[in-house]
Amino acid sequence: MATSEPRATGGDQDPNSDNLRPPSSRFLQKNNSLDDKGRLAGQKNLLSCDNSDRDARFRLTETDFSNLFARDLLPAKNGEEPTIQFLLEMVDILTNYVKKTFDRSTKVLDFHHPHQLLEGMEGFNLELSDQPESLEQILVDCRDTLKYGVRTGHPRFFNQLSSGLDIIGLAGEWLTSTANTNMFTYEIAPVFVLMEQLTLKKMREMIGWPNGEGDGLFSPGGAISNMYSVMIARYKYFPEVKTKGMSAAPRLVLFTSEHSHYSIKKAGAALGFGAENVILLSTDERGRVIPADLEAKIIDAKQKGYVPLFVNATAGSTVYGAFDPINEIADICEKYNLWLHVDGAWGGGLLMSRKHRHKLSGVERANSVTWNPHKMMGVPLQCSAILVREKGILAGCNSMCAGYLFQPDKQYDVTYDTGDKAIQCGRHVDIFKFWLMWKAKGTIGFEQHIDKCLDLSQYLYNKIKNREGYQMVFDGVPQHTNVCFWYIPPSLRGMPDGEERREKLHRVAPKIKAMMMESGTTMVGYQPQGNKVNFFRMVVSNPAATQSDIDFLIDEIERMGQDL
Amino acid sequence: MATSEPRATGGDQDPNSDNLRPPSSRFLQKNNSLDDKGRLAGQKNLLSCDNSDRDARFRLTETDFSNLFARDLLPAKNGEEPTIQFLLEMVDILTNYVKKTFDRSTKVLDFHHPHQLLEGMEGFNLELSDQPESLEQILVDCRDTLKYGVRTGHPRFFNQLSSGLDIIGLAGEWLTSTANTNMFTYEIAPVFVLMEQLTLKKMREMIGWPNGEGDGLFSPGGAISNMYSVMIARYKYFPEVKTKGMSAAPRLVLFTSEHSHYSIKKAGAALGFGAENVILLSTDERGRVIPADLEAKIIDAKQKGYVPLFVNATAGSTVYGAFDPINEIADICEKYNLWLHVDGAWGGGLLMSRKHRHKLSGVERANSVTWNPHKMMGVPLQCSAILVREKGILAGCNSMCAGYLFQPDKQYDVTYDTGDKAIQCGRHVDIFKFWLMWKAKGTIGFEQHIDKCLDLSQYLYNKIKNREGYQMVFDGVPQHTNVCFWYIPPSLRGMPDGEERREKLHRVAPKIKAMMMESGTTMVGYQPQGNKVNFFRMVVSNPAATQSDIDFLIDEIERMGQDL
Repeated sequence: MATSEPRATGGDQDPNSDNLRPPSSRFLQKNNSLDDKGRLAGQKNLLSCDNSDRDARFRLTETDFSNLFARDLLPAKNGEEPTIQFLLEMVDILTNYVKKTFDRSTKVLDFHHPHQLLEGMEGFNLELSDQPESLEQILVDCRDTLKYGVRTGHPRFFNQLSSGLDIIGLAGEWLTSTANTNMFTYEIAPVFVLMEQLTLKKMREMIGWPNGEGDGLFSPGGAISNMYSVMIARYKYFPEVKTKGMSAAPRLVLFTSEHSHYSIKKAGAALGFGAENVILLSTDERGRVIPADLEAKIIDAKQKGYVPLFVNATAGSTVYGAFDPINEIADICEKYNLWLHVDGAWGGGLLMSRKHRHKLSGVERANSVTWNPHKMMGVPLQCSAILVREKGILAGCNSMCAGYLFQPDKQYDVTYDTGDKAIQCGRHVDIFKFWLMWKAKGTIGFEQHIDKCLDLSQYLYNKIKNREGYQMVFDGVPQHTNVCFWYIPPSLRGMPDGEERREKLHRVAPKIKAMMMESGTTMVGYQPQGNKVNFFRMVVSNPAATQSDIDFLIDEIERMGQDL
Repeated sequence: MATSEPRATGGDQDPNSDNLRPPSSRFLQKNNSLDDKGRLAGQKNLLSCDNSDRDARFRLTETDFSNLFARDLLPAKNGEEPTIQFLLEMVDILTNYVKKTFDRSTKVLDFHHPHQLLEGMEGFNLELSDQPESLEQILVDCRDTLKYGVRTGHPRFFNQLSSGLDIIGLAGEWLTSTANTNMFTYEIAPVFVLMEQLTLKKMREMIGWPNGEGDGLFSPGGAISNMYSVMIARYKYFPEVKTKGMSAAPRLVLFTSEHSHYSIKKAGAALGFGAENVILLSTDERGRVIPADLEAKIIDAKQKGYVPLFVNATAGSTVYGAFDPINEIADICEKYNLWLHVDGAWGGGLLMSRKHRHKLSGVERANSVTWNPHKMMGVPLQCSAILVREKGILAGCNSMCAGYLFQPDKQYDVTYDTGDKAIQCGRHVDIFKFWLMWKAKGTIGFEQHIDKCLDLSQYLYNKIKNREGYQMVFDGVPQHTNVCFWYIPPSLRGMPDGEERREKLHRVAPKIKAMMMESGTTMVGYQPQGNKVNFFRMVVSNPAATQSDIDFLIDEIERMGQDL
């Protein structure tokens, strides 16, 4: 700490209790003025950077962290200099990680089994103890954490609907963590609350609700957003359930595709409907709900004396990427007076593309929509919106009017406080990174990203649809970026269809996936679906992916699957 | 961009598709070798920093961001240099913000009304548009976002149970955002999943469950953690509700203090019990549940034919900081075979203090516990744990066995996959910052922080309990850091008790709070409670706060309230 200078800011012993005096900055005056720049730049191990027009630029010094501890950082007396140096050291680790993430010469992951990591890899000890570790060890722990993790932004990471590492979004998250506040009131998150409001309005405009009117919230993920939709549908038709419970309502049933996300069923179980009152709808061979099946099941439920309440139409199913026919489903919902929810967690992003938004045609007729910008739009995790056409119903459904948080006698317009609309109390700031990305890319930037991803998946589809050793799970160009296929190893290619071949084929994808993870070269998902044995589900949402990465994936599958 | 050099990494046009070649680094070789350091240091506007033993250190250059856009950053061709420079520029903004946060000469906030911010402050335009903004404008937007926000880490921010800005936690969040992954499977979050497991075990040990056995999850906030506790209690006693819904159970009732957090009632409403089946328990003058009232209300409910299911004991209530008598409540729960949940969202942190943990005496008898490290332990938002004594019940309650995510035929031990235990699908990584803070401080570091906060609140209590113009809301030393008091302006001091005085006093705290926010000097909460008019609730969880800040708060209240 050769260059640190004593300064009483935030110390325990000698706090500076002056009120709002002009910013004092001995450190800045001494070391960061323009006059001093040349002198500083010539010193060894003490290399300063230029002034900005507003604040002092940071200056990285050589710091020995082996004798520094968390207690030496701010708010400790003289903590400013070690604090800044520690954060810069962390940034050095992180920027190196960012560089490697995008570098195809690095692995996607360095796989280890749980017991290996638990035993401690090369000194990386996960156990917690009573005594503090030095900041040097903390920095090593951070390097190790990244080393044994998975690079979800790597151009060859295709494992999840969320992939990629958007730099603007990342910077937005860094700022969000630094601001460290809570969405529940305008009082402590004025800018973020307004950003959320404006962004939700913009999203409602893209859905097509008149003037973007309506309501909404960012929630901790698509499953919770879908849960909201079920809650508010129930509140709309049976508001007395809020106070009296489910016994105040008849037996209510919900409808969703057999291909839909499991969160609808989970919501049914959690909210007291019961999982068996979530009725699964049949789909066509492409995984799209058959509207006639919906109507038949509604009629059947009514005949049994149950009360149909809610229909979920999926816009972009998890495995096939299927878009249910929203307009036909909306016709049926109107006929039977049911709540229509569109789960666009995965497919909602296509609303940003003039070329592909027709796949959600009819979405403007929905009562509520789930849309996860953290999936197709590449926003860092997590960022999920529940959007609602009717204003006020979220608050009606969830408000409990806690006086200690949502005081009506504040000096500002308290309709901006969002907390009582949510089932959460505290709510993480998920909006800023998204708002910042939208500013930085513009709507057209999102559109270009989405169109590119869909082009890439079509490239993959064209490449393998007639290729030897591949069989598509369903015919035709995929609606979303999901390309579902079996790789048939040479040993199975001549084998007649039957149980033995099915069993063998079922084991192919898990084996290839395990090899991929152990070699660390790429990652792609697989799963069974219905009576179909394990197949690969390729998805493209990663902005770093190119045709060469698609080629690489296919080469890897063939290299690894050749001898199975 | 004078210093950037063309390099083909991750570009769209000319991706480098070599597999796992040795890291090439012309940029590094040229500019970051030890030999070049002296030369570089002497150059104007091109000031390099030292090499680390592993990776190239970053180097800050003067970059003109006015002609750069998001599309020029990685994964764009030649995007590495602008990416690093952009991130460093952001870090410069953030480290300056961190410095100011701890500087008592700066304001806590620069208050503006919603309409003012919406109209655009000095060019700060919140609206989103079709076209991208330059990175220069993005950086300005970030500065403005921080400028008009609230410094929740400022030593004089006392407004919330969560306050302070822990530097280790902040660095942990930066790393978490950079890793950008999801807790649902070991597959894509191996290190974080294990950290969560080990940390939850450690927390269960501190609760006192044998060998730290049991289960748990980090959830998006205390309200959701409390909701989990109600769900699993229901599943334990009436597992058929999961499939058949609430109609498969009798009329179930839940018990919680009239002083408890509203999330218990919210959970009752959301999960289909009905808010009126959440029975509020009377408290003593200190806000602690009266056990005899609990027993009387259980008997009353049974006599009405209802079925008591669940009791919530609050460890650290939101307003008074009261600790319900857990042992006496546990006796009653055992007698009537009820689920005992302890909501230690606010008070759980005291388990880390040998001096104060006795306030949670009996917590080891609970079936489930909510504990938010983001409150008393100063972990950045958000970080909340639901801890459960019985292993397997979380999964039993919530699992839906989605084949596309939780494949049973993976190559690793899939019991490490956590996703199917949660009501979320994707789950944000909330563990790392907490794990890192625990490593960096040790258990003793948390203990010291907690003891210091409680000492400070006792300092405040001693200062004002007999001071002219103050009246305590309840007598005696507070159990937690909550100090609740009325400030009585001179004009009200001689006035006899009665409706007029009550009405006037009710308006005092909101008026002083408004003045605080408009002057930006400090922030503290107020609220009414029951039949008590608005009073201040001071809480200390901010590690930056000192006695001088407590003194400052009291001076401010008196200065602003003098003439009311």
